[in-house]
Amino acid sequence: MNAEIVAVGSELLTPQRLDTNSLYLTDQLNSLGVELVMKMVVGDDRRRLAEAVRAALSRSEIVIITGGLGPTEDDVTRDAVAQAIGRSQSFHQDICDWIEARFKRMNRVMVENNRRQAFVIDGAEILENDRGTAPGQWINEHGRIIMLLPGPPNELKAMFSAQCMPKLERLLPPQVIRTRFYRVAGMPESDLDQLIAPVYTKYENPATTILAAPSDIQFHLRARCADEASALAVLAEVGGEIEQLLGDRIYSTDGRPLEAAVGAMLARKNATLAVAESCTGGMLAERITSVAGSSNYFLGGFLTYTNRMKIEILGIDPAELEQHTAVSEFTAEAMARGAKERTGASYALSVTGVAGPDGGTEESPVGTVWIGLANATESQARRYRFLGDRERIRGLATQTALDLLRRKLGTAGS
Amino acid sequence: MNAEIVAVGSELLTPQRLDTNSLYLTDQLNSLGVELVMKMVVGDDRRRLAEAVRAALSRSEIVIITGGLGPTEDDVTRDAVAQAIGRSQSFHQDICDWIEARFKRMNRVMVENNRRQAFVIDGAEILENDRGTAPGQWINEHGRIIMLLPGPPNELKAMFSAQCMPKLERLLPPQVIRTRFYRVAGMPESDLDQLIAPVYTKYENPATTILAAPSDIQFHLRARCADEASALAVLAEVGGEIEQLLGDRIYSTDGRPLEAAVGAMLARKNATLAVAESCTGGMLAERITSVAGSSNYFLGGFLTYTNRMKIEILGIDPAELEQHTAVSEFTAEAMARGAKERTGASYALSVTGVAGPDGGTEESPVGTVWIGLANATESQARRYRFLGDRERIRGLATQTALDLLRRKLGTAGS
Repeated sequence: MNAEIVAVGSELLTPQRLDTNSLYLTDQLNSLGVELVMKMVVGDDRRRLAEAVRAALSRSEIVIITGGLGPTEDDVTRDAVAQAIGRSQSFHQDICDWIEARFKRMNRVMVENNRRQAFVIDGAEILENDRGTAPGQWINEHGRIIMLLPGPPNELKAMFSAQCMPKLERLLPPQVIRTRFYRVAGMPESDLDQLIAPVYTKYENPATTILAAPSDIQFHLRARCADEASALAVLAEVGGEIEQLLGDRIYSTDGRPLEAAVGAMLARKNATLAVAESCTGGMLAERITSVAGSSNYFLGGFLTYTNRMKIEILGIDPAELEQHTAVSEFTAEAMARGAKERTGASYALSVTGVAGPDGGTEESPVGTVWIGLANATESQARRYRFLGDRERIRGLATQTALDLLRRKLGTAGS
Repeated sequence: MNAEIVAVGSELLTPQRLDTNSLYLTDQLNSLGVELVMKMVVGDDRRRLAEAVRAALSRSEIVIITGGLGPTEDDVTRDAVAQAIGRSQSFHQDICDWIEARFKRMNRVMVENNRRQAFVIDGAEILENDRGTAPGQWINEHGRIIMLLPGPPNELKAMFSAQCMPKLERLLPPQVIRTRFYRVAGMPESDLDQLIAPVYTKYENPATTILAAPSDIQFHLRARCADEASALAVLAEVGGEIEQLLGDRIYSTDGRPLEAAVGAMLARKNATLAVAESCTGGMLAERITSVAGSSNYFLGGFLTYTNRMKIEILGIDPAELEQHTAVSEFTAEAMARGAKERTGASYALSVTGVAGPDGGTEESPVGTVWIGLANATESQARRYRFLGDRERIRGLATQTALDLLRRKLGTAGS
């Protein structure tokens, strides 16, 4: 079966915005064995969108339309699809009541415009939206499937995975696809590929996909077989060879990000963590606390953005701080020790550096970051030099700090 | 004049890759007053691509096709376009010689496949490629323009800016485009639209685009006129009416995010800021410090994720904390006051709440967030109820906290 995606929104035709929902949808469709054969982006234009939908239906069995389901005049998807397939729309009081109740829960009053979102194309099944006001629609048009999904990625993903995937699975021939996810920290993509390509290129099945982000590589092995046992056997064979090669560079085999992997290690050890951040300004703690349940091991921390904060809040000696400067081994270690002592945590991480664009010196150019780690018995700090803009430098610093702690936690007896 | 972009390549239909050339091309086209009305991505499939090109030519005056000009069997763009417009191709010995010389300069031998790249559609002008082997082509088809450009971004950009832009400028009437950006906090999209639609729908020029994210709406007015003075006058008229209606809900007129707008207000007042975060775990400070130069006004803060941290680090009375609970007006206010006192900042923001998915109670269900604000003379706290997942609740809490401070800073004498 073939699919097409039509992303709707004039903002997606500006130089600032790309449709990224299609990446998620493609991944999901591929996992069912459905191939994507075309993507289109259309502005908020009823006539053009209706034409695009008609053209897509003439080529492909599955047509997914994303966006344009909002409450404004600009939101033309419902009308355009109805026009493309020659059906009418009806007002559904129950949807309107549901939207109104949602507003009420947020102590707001529903405005008249939102009534538009209660119109449904005749014959469509309603896809509930538990994260926004726009319901989706699922239409079977002479055996071809049309889906109308909301544009906001969190709404679209929740709706597609919970409601569309099970419906699609029932329509498609049985096929088992099983995937193994690996995540690797602290290694450039080219080095990783050099190491594991001799293994994965030997096999057509599973298919290997490598996704690289700064200091964080994900790769997937995807086996497609007639039954589950065969798929798992294929994954075990190829996955086993790759795990041998990568060893402890793999930090996650279930897709979890580094902060979740480190959190699980802390929880297993009944250990606790605190942080002291300067240049990352809360980003390290933000990542740690993005994990549900992080209050089981994360105590808190100190954002010591100024030297005075480092002295007064973390108790760093002012003379030594001035002598070594804020971006130094001394300061990173003292910050980690200070955070550990003041919180009683088993481990403390610290970050101090120059995220730029200003503030670089000859000794510590932009991108220089010291990362400190303290536990009950010792403290240490390491110097790094990251390249890129402010956001990238801060991201790499938090990733490296988390990986440092991961390796420490992985060492026996630490 | 309208344009469409067709990106060619099966890799652009995988979950890993997006066509980003179109962003650059859109920006360039817009600067000439050309509107992009559709984008398509097509795989390496001759028939589908020929159909896509025919459809694009039926709708738009300019059709740009990117990619698929390489030397392999998979590179179908030349053949597909020739087929779409019913022209033949001819082999150009001079292009072949040029490609061969290029290989020689790199001490390599040209393989037979590369001869394909010396085929040119009859009547096309050749666009030279000084960064790769694939020449581009410029075709005038009964007054409609078709461009064939190479896929690698550096080759495409160099070719388009040096060769296509001057050709387009000669074809197009002189025209100026000027844009105003607005950002609005604390207002749902539907309310905003209800308020300003009566204004912007009166005008065809400027065009209005609304982009909504949770508690953060951007909208653009784009005026297209024969000269700059007219474009600015149009923007001033419509922008002025909208500014009247929205008043201080507009926090930025230059595209800057809320944390940058608040930072600039703090810097103008020579004021400083500290934070105390519980459920947002550093996200508020991370946003504040994402702004370059934030060290001019941000002192730092306290991540008091546990009750013990709230008591020991911020000095909150343990009995009162237990009585009121961590998610309460009392605690939010005490956190803000504690952060202000311990840092000497002019302002302190605090956030304490239940980000979920666990931890909700009857009194404080998931999504309940108290936000506190203290300055030299007073402190206050407000209760909010946000809907969504952990990430969304935390994001809305930080946005709301920043907006609370912005309104405080905007008040005379505060």
